[in-house]
Amino acid sequence: MKLVSFRHAGKDSFGIAVSEGVVDLAPYASAVGSTLRQALVRGSLSTIEAIARDAKSTVVWADLEFLPVVPDAQKILCVGINYLEHVEETGRDVPTQPTIFTRFADSQTAHDAAIVRPSVSVKLDFEGELAVVIGRTARHVNAVDAFDYVAGYSCYNDGSVRDWQRHASQFTPGKNFPRTGGFGPWLVTADELGDPSKLTLTTRLNGEVVQHATTDDLIFDIPALIEYSSTFTELRPGDVIITGTTGGVGAFREPPLWMKPGDVVEVEISKIGVLKNTIVDE
Amino acid sequence: MKLVSFRHAGKDSFGIAVSEGVVDLAPYASAVGSTLRQALVRGSLSTIEAIARDAKSTVVWADLEFLPVVPDAQKILCVGINYLEHVEETGRDVPTQPTIFTRFADSQTAHDAAIVRPSVSVKLDFEGELAVVIGRTARHVNAVDAFDYVAGYSCYNDGSVRDWQRHASQFTPGKNFPRTGGFGPWLVTADELGDPSKLTLTTRLNGEVVQHATTDDLIFDIPALIEYSSTFTELRPGDVIITGTTGGVGAFREPPLWMKPGDVVEVEISKIGVLKNTIVDE
Repeated sequence: MKLVSFRHAGKDSFGIAVSEGVVDLAPYASAVGSTLRQALVRGSLSTIEAIARDAKSTVVWADLEFLPVVPDAQKILCVGINYLEHVEETGRDVPTQPTIFTRFADSQTAHDAAIVRPSVSVKLDFEGELAVVIGRTARHVNAVDAFDYVAGYSCYNDGSVRDWQRHASQFTPGKNFPRTGGFGPWLVTADELGDPSKLTLTTRLNGEVVQHATTDDLIFDIPALIEYSSTFTELRPGDVIITGTTGGVGAFREPPLWMKPGDVVEVEISKIGVLKNTIVDE
Repeated sequence: MKLVSFRHAGKDSFGIAVSEGVVDLAPYASAVGSTLRQALVRGSLSTIEAIARDAKSTVVWADLEFLPVVPDAQKILCVGINYLEHVEETGRDVPTQPTIFTRFADSQTAHDAAIVRPSVSVKLDFEGELAVVIGRTARHVNAVDAFDYVAGYSCYNDGSVRDWQRHASQFTPGKNFPRTGGFGPWLVTADELGDPSKLTLTTRLNGEVVQHATTDDLIFDIPALIEYSSTFTELRPGDVIITGTTGGVGAFREPPLWMKPGDVVEVEISKIGVLKNTIVDE
């Protein structure tokens, strides 16, 4: 099952992706909640699957605007330098513990929407990543049980303003400009996706492949990240872990490759789909 | 005016601190909101001042439990190495731009409540700091206008789990264990406090002074922090900027001084008051 957060006729909703569009779950809000995060908090996925089997009417793709998969995510944990190829290009040591920074929800943007290059920088970079959405409250979870806490997966473009990321030791400023983090197009539920450790992740800029990896290259895999994160904070339904990017980012190219207005950036992950964004100036 | 978030008879509320206790604003919720953050979002401070002049009944101090000043703060920006004395003890260079990391709201704890030492570490450290609470939506604010966006001030103890803070380059894990960040006892409104650049900040552990500074020692002062932060993110009413700690933290003492169960830690700031917490084990 694929779940989409979207806007239609001026109203925000969420629903089930089918071939011609989305089954709007707004009529079922009292049963399943009115946002994807609420549905996850209520544990409504099985109810939603039952609705999906019977639903008739859909909002066709042309009539809706995507929203970030979890527009109101409360905790967005981002993992840095988690692929060896990226560790090498940054010149850092191979990490012995995960590098974790955070994004605020309003730094996100949706599939088929703009990524905004801020007025204060031209050093806007891409980072294609696999996002994990939490489905159950998780604290002190062991890695062996970690997949029990995963609702599903999506694509993320952890758009980075490199000079602001490097102003000081902490990445927060460069990772939180409004509408720089692409999140979409949808959540693919864990049962539909199956094993997330053999996915292919490709980032394209204007059609050209700029990053390519498989998720079995992750230094800290998804269970390790859930065990580590749930030790220092309580993860709740709708929280997001963005698992890190591989080599090929623009900052370490010679000359550097920055995204500029009009560019089209795509993050494609096998079994999930393509997250596409166009760069616009603030 | 001093505003307090508190729990009384099983209900969370907020109110105005007076000598014998707190004027509960719950009866005025339709006019001013039912939490301090809602009141700030609605711009209710002048309405609250009018209520304060007429209010008769109070909840006495003995009957209430403090909550963190803004229990549901959406963005908590923490400033690292922002006093020269602390820069020197860390061995870092004097920063040319602010160091910004984040806390989640559930990492906070209230005045007169526990700071929790997690089960995975004994390296629990104190950091007395001045907290600034935002009162108006702020984006691209110039330093000269920055005080227009400040609702008020409070004390913060940016409790830090040092080994988890230093696992990797990013501080997030060591700064987000549940109930490690003391925030209280109340918000002192900007008009009542006056100039925040000449405050005295003292941290005491079991009665002994362990940190002492005046806020004119800040490397990046409050206007500079608001200008910088509002460039990369939109600040909204109820958001918090924790302005950094001075020298004397436990990690850089020889031998290190860690907080342990039963310890009492206090952060006192002139014109605000004393934030007091007792350490307990998870």
